Amino acid sequence: MTLTPSRDDKFSFGLWTLGWAAQDQFGGPTRPHLDTVEAVEKLAEYGAYGLTFHDDDLFPFGSADNVRQGEIDRLKQALSDTGLIIPMVTTNLFSHPVFKDGGFTSNDRGVRRFALRKVLRNIDLAAELGAKTFVMWGGREGSEYDAAKDIRGALERYREAVNLLGDYVTDKGYDLKFAIEPKPNEPRGDILLPTVGHALAFIATLERPELVGLNPETGHEQMAGLNFTHGIAQALYSDKLFHIDLNGQRGVKFDQDLVFGHGDVQNAFSLVDLLENGGPNGGPSYTGPRHFDYKPSRTEDINGVWDSVQANMRMYLLLKERAAAFRADPEVQEALLAARVDEVNAPTLNEGESYDALLADRASYEDFDADAYFGGKGFGFVRLQQLAMEHLLGAR
Amino acid sequence: MTLTPSRDDKFSFGLWTLGWAAQDQFGGPTRPHLDTVEAVEKLAEYGAYGLTFHDDDLFPFGSADNVRQGEIDRLKQALSDTGLIIPMVTTNLFSHPVFKDGGFTSNDRGVRRFALRKVLRNIDLAAELGAKTFVMWGGREGSEYDAAKDIRGALERYREAVNLLGDYVTDKGYDLKFAIEPKPNEPRGDILLPTVGHALAFIATLERPELVGLNPETGHEQMAGLNFTHGIAQALYSDKLFHIDLNGQRGVKFDQDLVFGHGDVQNAFSLVDLLENGGPNGGPSYTGPRHFDYKPSRTEDINGVWDSVQANMRMYLLLKERAAAFRADPEVQEALLAARVDEVNAPTLNEGESYDALLADRASYEDFDADAYFGGKGFGFVRLQQLAMEHLLGAR
Amino acid sequence: MTLTPSRDDKFSFGLWTLGWAAQDQFGGPTRPHLDTVEAVEKLAEYGAYGLTFHDDDLFPFGSADNVRQGEIDRLKQALSDTGLIIPMVTTNLFSHPVFKDGGFTSNDRGVRRFALRKVLRNIDLAAELGAKTFVMWGGREGSEYDAAKDIRGALERYREAVNLLGDYVTDKGYDLKFAIEPKPNEPRGDILLPTVGHALAFIATLERPELVGLNPETGHEQMAGLNFTHGIAQALYSDKLFHIDLNGQRGVKFDQDLVFGHGDVQNAFSLVDLLENGGPNGGPSYTGPRHFDYKPSRTEDINGVWDSVQANMRMYLLLKERAAAFRADPEVQEALLAARVDEVNAPTLNEGESYDALLADRASYEDFDADAYFGGKGFGFVRLQQLAMEHLLGAR
Amino acid sequence: MTLTPSRDDKFSFGLWTLGWAAQDQFGGPTRPHLDTVEAVEKLAEYGAYGLTFHDDDLFPFGSADNVRQGEIDRLKQALSDTGLIIPMVTTNLFSHPVFKDGGFTSNDRGVRRFALRKVLRNIDLAAELGAKTFVMWGGREGSEYDAAKDIRGALERYREAVNLLGDYVTDKGYDLKFAIEPKPNEPRGDILLPTVGHALAFIATLERPELVGLNPETGHEQMAGLNFTHGIAQALYSDKLFHIDLNGQRGVKFDQDLVFGHGDVQNAFSLVDLLENGGPNGGPSYTGPRHFDYKPSRTEDINGVWDSVQANMRMYLLLKERAAAFRADPEVQEALLAARVDEVNAPTLNEGESYDALLADRASYEDFDADAYFGGKGFGFVRLQQLAMEHLLGAR
Repeated sequence: MTLTPSRDDKFSFGLWTLGWAAQDQFGGPTRPHLDTVEAVEKLAEYGAYGLTFHDDDLFPFGSADNVRQGEIDRLKQALSDTGLIIPMVTTNLFSHPVFKDGGFTSNDRGVRRFALRKVLRNIDLAAELGAKTFVMWGGREGSEYDAAKDIRGALERYREAVNLLGDYVTDKGYDLKFAIEPKPNEPRGDILLPTVGHALAFIATLERPELVGLNPETGHEQMAGLNFTHGIAQALYSDKLFHIDLNGQRGVKFDQDLVFGHGDVQNAFSLVDLLENGGPNGGPSYTGPRHFDYKPSRTEDINGVWDSVQANMRMYLLLKERAAAFRADPEVQEALLAARVDEVNAPTLNEGESYDALLADRASYEDFDADAYFGGKGFGFVRLQQLAMEHLLGAR
Repeated sequence: MTLTPSRDDKFSFGLWTLGWAAQDQFGGPTRPHLDTVEAVEKLAEYGAYGLTFHDDDLFPFGSADNVRQGEIDRLKQALSDTGLIIPMVTTNLFSHPVFKDGGFTSNDRGVRRFALRKVLRNIDLAAELGAKTFVMWGGREGSEYDAAKDIRGALERYREAVNLLGDYVTDKGYDLKFAIEPKPNEPRGDILLPTVGHALAFIATLERPELVGLNPETGHEQMAGLNFTHGIAQALYSDKLFHIDLNGQRGVKFDQDLVFGHGDVQNAFSLVDLLENGGPNGGPSYTGPRHFDYKPSRTEDINGVWDSVQANMRMYLLLKERAAAFRADPEVQEALLAARVDEVNAPTLNEGESYDALLADRASYEDFDADAYFGGKGFGFVRLQQLAMEHLLGAR
Repeated sequence: MTLTPSRDDKFSFGLWTLGWAAQDQFGGPTRPHLDTVEAVEKLAEYGAYGLTFHDDDLFPFGSADNVRQGEIDRLKQALSDTGLIIPMVTTNLFSHPVFKDGGFTSNDRGVRRFALRKVLRNIDLAAELGAKTFVMWGGREGSEYDAAKDIRGALERYREAVNLLGDYVTDKGYDLKFAIEPKPNEPRGDILLPTVGHALAFIATLERPELVGLNPETGHEQMAGLNFTHGIAQALYSDKLFHIDLNGQRGVKFDQDLVFGHGDVQNAFSLVDLLENGGPNGGPSYTGPRHFDYKPSRTEDINGVWDSVQANMRMYLLLKERAAAFRADPEVQEALLAARVDEVNAPTLNEGESYDALLADRASYEDFDADAYFGGKGFGFVRLQQLAMEHLLGAR
Repeated sequence: MTLTPSRDDKFSFGLWTLGWAAQDQFGGPTRPHLDTVEAVEKLAEYGAYGLTFHDDDLFPFGSADNVRQGEIDRLKQALSDTGLIIPMVTTNLFSHPVFKDGGFTSNDRGVRRFALRKVLRNIDLAAELGAKTFVMWGGREGSEYDAAKDIRGALERYREAVNLLGDYVTDKGYDLKFAIEPKPNEPRGDILLPTVGHALAFIATLERPELVGLNPETGHEQMAGLNFTHGIAQALYSDKLFHIDLNGQRGVKFDQDLVFGHGDVQNAFSLVDLLENGGPNGGPSYTGPRHFDYKPSRTEDINGVWDSVQANMRMYLLLKERAAAFRADPEVQEALLAARVDEVNAPTLNEGESYDALLADRASYEDFDADAYFGGKGFGFVRLQQLAMEHLLGAR
């Protein structure tokens, strides 16, 4: 296995990530604007296969048509020159003052209509550029104050919007699916669809649920103290992992957007193991882009930006290598067996067994020795965890 | 409005709440066992209408049949004597060592079968006692270590179990619905179905989703830093608020189980407002039991237990009174209008409007004055929040 | 008691608070620049007594001397016209790119020298304007990565800087004390001196500890899940509450900077009770400015800004009124006595009692009935809490 | 370097750790009592050098003198047989109902006197067994409700208690120092001295501060979202790292007490690096016991207990090995230099430089090119972090 990224690895980056000028809540930018063409060329050189963007990343909000088209043309040329592709596009409904109370769910109906128009226009561009996924992060859809937002009304407006977009791409024949990106808070005090679970539940209410899946982000789930690997597993269970945002977060705090693996590396390890080895016959469970949505630290100049681009891919490949070794280790196999990890995949009922049959099975209850679990029948999870950590640390 | 509870208020308490002997992770019990009959009598006296219980609360795990029946008979007599009812029953799948890796999703198939049998037996009892809701809190369904649990397998076993229970109550003709209670962690490092959202999403995968809803608990959502009122609103949006566990929590930490309103009282205020005034024509959005799932602090003796029982109900009634005044205040009405809170209930599209019509509406985009939102078109949310706080504080 | 602010209430506001243009991590400003003179005039009109500022709030970083002086002169004139005072001044060591790794503790020694110069210049201005407190918030003093910062070295540089500033104000004869403002994280992943406790401990290492105290901020402590009232109490215990930043925060998440009382209002209530009634003979325990360090929500225009200015003061006065009523209520007095709250102020040893005497006192151990605390000797804390909540809610 | 523990590694374990019967807030024990002698023998066999205990671990609360002495004698014999030592002893002031409102700071003065007596007796035992450190974890010193505890009074009682204990060990000539163990919450809603910082600040108020230091615990600081390595660095900066409790925690939630390194392994790496390589000339900065205060997961039987004992030591040694390689790597040395990490150890002022000289140095301010930090002068922290992660993962 190699730690040098190649296009087969399907690594992609947001233009807003390497292009972040490093302004934050408490300070101005520390880096100049990064030109799109330079971004494309460097990503290609370092082994990425894709670039993604918000409309406003490529051309400023409110650009005249010719300015907008000029930037699109420059991008297309760079893609053509490098072979990089655009696997995903997304719309910025959060930066301009017009979206200060959200886009699809702003209390202001005029804003909602404007937001829909902005998205529809960007969907056309996404389709034109061959993107297969259209991400929706509703960072301003939410509230600071409980009385200020009718949550059920807002969910209904969210639903109205996504239903309309589903009709649109269907009628246009676009080969484009939607991926909702949950986040619990920041910049709003509470954001709608705060976790993978809430977004999955929302999707189930849509008119075209088959068109809509998730784009979970590592740090967003971890900001709520949730296990990202568990969230991804539930998304896979519901066949809704349409895209993924990889980055790093160190606990329940503001959104750090560190390099992937530079946060909770233990959880990153189990995530990569799930993505790469959790599918049928031990193959990948997810075959889409490995998309990095992170921010090069504000302390860095352009050299640090490129270091961070490479670090994301290298961390992923390193964890993939570790996960493969973990799965291949006979002692791990034995420990998994002892911990009965796979036994959870065996149905609890016998084939064809009815509840009556279960009720009649004295071995399952009347004669079952529950007390044997006191002082015995340990699961051996600590040993398994130690093996996992040793593989993560390259110590086996 | 009165602050004296009556049965019409539908206040119910878990036997394990007032009956908690106050043992915790770091210390033994500080109170003796509370007899079931005393609990029933006192609850009736204080104005509650219902008692709820886990099987193991009423009769110890592994009780001989006659011991079990004796306790059931004593309970029935007390109910008959007092008029208290049993609106909800639940099963303990978390205290005995046999459940150390969970019940429905233990890696150990024998444990899973035992758990199903324990639940089926308890469902019969619930039906016999006239309970309408059967709560499932899967507190031990989860893991500490990412490699120790196949999450998709565990979800599939959870689903298998709930499907079987749905068949059972359907075939038996029981008038009983299920309510899943999410929790993010504790006692397991990560628990399956950690939030309202994850549980809603899981329910959508079931064979009989109509039989299964939620029993969200204040503190459980707040342990993940989530807004409980938002979670309840999404549950209502999905018609899945089958039951509710009210208590108090002070932030992201261990499960405190304080008296309702003794934690985040601002969020408790908006919750009661939603439950009592968020329905059609401003009436209740939820008509089931107001169930308190809390723990009288370990510092208290039996007097403090009864103080806490009364405090829960009094806090609810006080917040209900405050919420009614909030809704009735003309200045609040005006502020809600100014903040366009209700405008989110107006469809974004005109009646019958297609996306083509929207695209043709220049007022929605080309001629829309987005820049007017800079320095203008403020939402007035701070004023509205201040009015809410003043009503909460009884200052208007 | 009145809810109309007056200068005797000593309410002060940061120029950067009402003046915040509402740019954040994910979006640009939604409000235009607020002129200093307008800010001063409005604050005076609404009943505040003081304005505070960072150097860069008043005149942009790098201003030519005449521009700087022009802004200072305009401020002085406005103060003279209104009677408003400048109780506190602080220096911005966090917004400009030069401070991207901090000011006093940047790894770059040149930056550290520059930071010292910027602060020294601003101290002269503070003294000139009659400020009594000089706040130091080291928002960029910290790190994202454990290997990137030698913490002991950084603390030593922090100490070197504060020692030098102490010498400076002493030699100059300035009537100015320093107040360190702790924060756990944001914008850095981890910030030095993250809590009230860490800052107190640091102060004890200084050469002139008597010159340096704390400026704790509500939300900063609550971002670490800590009880702000407890932190203030420990600061008072160490005689180090030199200044205070009041605002609102809803749990462990990004720094929300809500209006005071719009976050954890229960904790705000106990805080005001401590500040106003926790001193000798039940008077104030703190007599300095009640300083609001908050941000008017990004959804608001200038009307919302003024609403928020007034809301801060009104919440404080309302809570002060509630706290006075709480203390005056005979039932509360009785409940406090029953809960033995004041008994913690009685020395554990008798006057003049040695440990030998204690060891000889059989009543203290050999004959002490520890088991009476099982099932008895409850503290009645729940009852007391319910009384506190009822006073907070204006229900008594 | 070897991964096999030896006594020179100074690994010690609490009797309550491997001996935990695995009862928790939601369930009973899953393991039988572990005999002290077996614990000692096994620890010796696995390479530990020390055992620690609370009085109540060794002999139940309220034991008759002969029972107590019998257990002490058995322990002494086992120590003599194995060569294990008792580096630290501590007192249980949190399990029995008498301590339900705390020990040293209970509102109940009789309880406070009882607590002092219990501790004094245990100090004699600690001295008799040759312990050098006496740990004080005040897990019940705190409150759930703000009105229920006078924090300043409680701190004064804490101080009175520790002052008395300091007098006692001084007069007795015991070679014993005290180490306070902070924790933010659980089992109390808020605990006094919640972090390393608060405890350091408290120590500075004592009559014999030289006798009292800290025993920080990994998970306790991380429960407040704080960086444990930073906390340890500040404790070292104040010469107060008297003892350390190593374990694992996965974020801001209940106290998990996982195996060391099984939580935030990135932070564990920097911690071991600090302890082992952060001292003079790159040697250890701390030479006391490496004490594991953890809980073998409730899923485990006795085999899992021994697995976990070994896992703690192995993780430490593995991280020590990784840290040594990190420090020895020339590329790391170069990256540290480029990131100017050591430059923070250079005084900001020149030798003998006064503030007047600094003010006269135009290079420090007037001629300093602050704008060069925009788009340049990056710190290279991401590269350094990537090198650290690669060393942690054994990939270099």
